[in-house]
Amino acid sequence: MDIYLALVHHPVLNRAGDVVATAVTNLDIHDLARIACTYGCRGTFVVTPISEQQELVRRIAAHWIEGEGRTSNPDRSRAFMGLEVVASVEAAMESIAASKNGRAPLVIGTSAKNERATEAFEILRERLAREEDPGSALIVFGTGWGLASDLLDRVDVMLPPINALPARAGYNHLPVRAAVAIVLDRLCGAR
Amino acid sequence: MDIYLALVHHPVLNRAGDVVATAVTNLDIHDLARIACTYGCRGTFVVTPISEQQELVRRIAAHWIEGEGRTSNPDRSRAFMGLEVVASVEAAMESIAASKNGRAPLVIGTSAKNERATEAFEILRERLAREEDPGSALIVFGTGWGLASDLLDRVDVMLPPINALPARAGYNHLPVRAAVAIVLDRLCGAR
Repeated sequence: MDIYLALVHHPVLNRAGDVVATAVTNLDIHDLARIACTYGCRGTFVVTPISEQQELVRRIAAHWIEGEGRTSNPDRSRAFMGLEVVASVEAAMESIAASKNGRAPLVIGTSAKNERATEAFEILRERLAREEDPGSALIVFGTGWGLASDLLDRVDVMLPPINALPARAGYNHLPVRAAVAIVLDRLCGAR
Repeated sequence: MDIYLALVHHPVLNRAGDVVATAVTNLDIHDLARIACTYGCRGTFVVTPISEQQELVRRIAAHWIEGEGRTSNPDRSRAFMGLEVVASVEAAMESIAASKNGRAPLVIGTSAKNERATEAFEILRERLAREEDPGSALIVFGTGWGLASDLLDRVDVMLPPINALPARAGYNHLPVRAAVAIVLDRLCGAR
């Protein structure tokens, strides 16, 4: 199956639990593009409804794809080619469906909290590895304090939170960049 | 076994393959501290022989441990408490040995290239999980274009490069922050 990522800046929670739109972080975009490329993702969506933020991401991407970055760092250029800016997760789903004869992607949610029924990484790993499946999967990550619950209500399947072995666990504040890398490695890393 | 990380800024390679000292990146330090904390590492060493860079890292850490950051973000404060700035990997080894009755850590090297004999992640995962072992391990990561070969010549064991499943592989430019997260998850992540 083809895999797509979405880095969501709205609707996400802030520290107080309110639904907000977070600001795009330049480095998140770079890391996401490079991590997605490493694991052969077909595309990465930066999700924000704020037009100034959309414009910022497009400017960063253009620098690497068409601007000075293209010759100074061709590998970075390649990573940015899979990047698309959209206003909502629904828009990302529509963009994917448009390239799949209208078939919607399987939407996979992520959370640092253990509040919902989840599907084991191993099960999803096997499902994503089926090469004969012409479908696609969209893995959705929240910035800030995580995805808003009304978005999580609409995903098809939830992944479990990332944890260390019990003897080492106890701190639950991974950067979203690190969570993306770990989730993709668990789902499509060579062993 | 107790696990420690080292993020090495010298001796590492630049794009041309020369041995250089890279500049410390504020965000690397933040991400490393949080990832190390998530996987229960006992400490994180930022390795640079340049005194201005050492001072910069100490200032960043002090902001979070003693300064305004302590009250604004106590979780970040906790992550930074395990951070130590040293001039060399040898100094990191000495610091660990000093807290282990003089016993040196097992030094584990990492590389994005497949040039040396490696130990499988699974074998090291089992070894690190032995709770009765009073020893320690130091996992060494290079910034820039990777650790210099004379440093790799001196590690006790090398990990394999991180790769995606063959059907998805082909891009080999992970940010070091992502590599640290993936390596720790493979070695000590709950499954």
